[in-house]
Amino acid sequence: MRLWENTIRRVTPYVPGEQPKGENLVKLNTNENPYPPAPGVIKALKEFNTDGLRKYPDPAASVLTEALAEYYGLKEDQIFVGVGSDDVIAMAFMTFFNSQKPIRFPEVTYSFYKVWAELFKIPYETPALREDFTIDPADYHGNTGGIIFPNPNAPTGVYMPLDQVEEILRNNQDAVVMVDEAYIDFAGPSALSLLDRYENLLVIQTFSKSRSLAGLRIGFAMGHPDLIRALNDVKYSYNSYTMNLPSQILGAEAVKDRAYFEKRVKQIVASRERAKKRLAKLGFTFPDSQANFIFVTHRKAGAEGIFQALKEKQIYVRYFKTPGLNNSLRITIGTDEEMDRLFEELERIIKEV
Amino acid sequence: MRLWENTIRRVTPYVPGEQPKGENLVKLNTNENPYPPAPGVIKALKEFNTDGLRKYPDPAASVLTEALAEYYGLKEDQIFVGVGSDDVIAMAFMTFFNSQKPIRFPEVTYSFYKVWAELFKIPYETPALREDFTIDPADYHGNTGGIIFPNPNAPTGVYMPLDQVEEILRNNQDAVVMVDEAYIDFAGPSALSLLDRYENLLVIQTFSKSRSLAGLRIGFAMGHPDLIRALNDVKYSYNSYTMNLPSQILGAEAVKDRAYFEKRVKQIVASRERAKKRLAKLGFTFPDSQANFIFVTHRKAGAEGIFQALKEKQIYVRYFKTPGLNNSLRITIGTDEEMDRLFEELERIIKEV
Repeated sequence: MRLWENTIRRVTPYVPGEQPKGENLVKLNTNENPYPPAPGVIKALKEFNTDGLRKYPDPAASVLTEALAEYYGLKEDQIFVGVGSDDVIAMAFMTFFNSQKPIRFPEVTYSFYKVWAELFKIPYETPALREDFTIDPADYHGNTGGIIFPNPNAPTGVYMPLDQVEEILRNNQDAVVMVDEAYIDFAGPSALSLLDRYENLLVIQTFSKSRSLAGLRIGFAMGHPDLIRALNDVKYSYNSYTMNLPSQILGAEAVKDRAYFEKRVKQIVASRERAKKRLAKLGFTFPDSQANFIFVTHRKAGAEGIFQALKEKQIYVRYFKTPGLNNSLRITIGTDEEMDRLFEELERIIKEV
Repeated sequence: MRLWENTIRRVTPYVPGEQPKGENLVKLNTNENPYPPAPGVIKALKEFNTDGLRKYPDPAASVLTEALAEYYGLKEDQIFVGVGSDDVIAMAFMTFFNSQKPIRFPEVTYSFYKVWAELFKIPYETPALREDFTIDPADYHGNTGGIIFPNPNAPTGVYMPLDQVEEILRNNQDAVVMVDEAYIDFAGPSALSLLDRYENLLVIQTFSKSRSLAGLRIGFAMGHPDLIRALNDVKYSYNSYTMNLPSQILGAEAVKDRAYFEKRVKQIVASRERAKKRLAKLGFTFPDSQANFIFVTHRKAGAEGIFQALKEKQIYVRYFKTPGLNNSLRITIGTDEEMDRLFEELERIIKEV
């Protein structure tokens, strides 16, 4: 018997999504951007001052927060950056969700909220979605330890109009409300415009989807300087240097190129709308996604069967075994060429059912 | 009154060390390597496949763990990597220090151990060093919730011979013992050779000092596969993608070039030994450092005064205001040219006392 094993923390290990490798595969399973990062990112890599790598990076990541402040018309002290939005959200849970009252997030949503709440021993409640997959703002009125929801929601892709987001804020002045806008650039307006009126609003975004930089791990939060200061205090209290030099420099370059960003987002949105038509014709139903993915259910063919059949043809989509989700597939929007290959295979698979 | 402020976690914000910018300055304050990273790192940057950045990085960072396994003659399942050794150690605290008994680490040591113990609510004890700044292994015999100490220790630079490290392990079979070897490459043999005999030993190292890559944030832990699995389970349970693509690829390149690594370490050790002679002549006393820094006290001149006078000349060394340390300076070993500039200024400053 090895006594030292008694002190090991026991957790349910999460198995990260498949990252298949190969030449001819179509990867539509992790909501990555099918287009490369902005040309400025590529240029900065080629011109990178490698000697700089020997030194610790700027703990405040100023070059990046400056670029973000400029882009979003905010002050630098309204922006917090972290190693992916997972890092930012986990830090925000630790910093802001310290009430005895339960926090609230949707029953069907990003699966890590529950994980972090349990890790930090934060009580939580999870109101169900409506039949049509929308969030009912009335479920989020008052008396909570805090609120978080993605907009658009995951894995449904459903966008909540800004007046409903504001309804939630108006009814929660006593706790921090976080809007996780990982997919907002493919959807309607951001809650950023509400920052002036709601000091307890934290808006969280990422470079992993619309900015084609999942490989760099960059997420950020925007909010009142008091919220940002609290986040930085918690971060600096236990780990000062987390965001490495390449992320700071290349991330800043990605933000500077507004034209490239807007062009790519427009392309993906066009491909998504085209995909909706094709998928409907193929017999799929889906909530009206405003993200870079569509959450589809087929009228006849089972999701797991389609998932396996596509995988055999080197096309990867996302299948969740979770009850309630296990008859659906989440399909990331790729290039039109990738989507055409998907439609072709889907047509064949569905004919055979 | 803003009620939402009540739920904010209150911490003592840590102020990260100075990262001064400028052309002609000599930076000897954060134990960075004065030499650039290996040529392979520079080449990999120039040839970087930027399209890869749009995808999530390999959560297991296999390219890096493979390179480390090869270098240290271990199996891949004996290696865990994280975003700097701070990330690795914090994760290890969370994973292994879950006993009711206090953990133990030296009173004078790396200041973050105390921070993490408090953050994770781990009880701790801090035995004092001996008069000569050495750790007494007898203070670390048995009945603990776990042990961590740096070897060489910080900020003293004192190395504990391997038979004493083993004495601590022999007397602690019931808890995990972590040896934080951030500076080991400049010192004597690593505790790695004890891994075969002690399944509860975790050896932690970093790319920030000897490998000239502080800017990438890479740390790693080596130990029994059961320890590494437990670390990965905890990590994956709440954040799957932390180490970004540049760190994985460039880190692997740094490890592959053994000759360059050994050459640079040898140069720094030679400069350190040369510095010891010069500093002794200037009237400084110091424990016999085996790290890439020397912790010096002057017989007459006060540390804070020297610190300020050097700073005026654009030479940055580290001054700790902590009682017990506040009459000393920690000087990082730079190039011989940088050290000569330091000695010149020190000579002038000390004459004026």
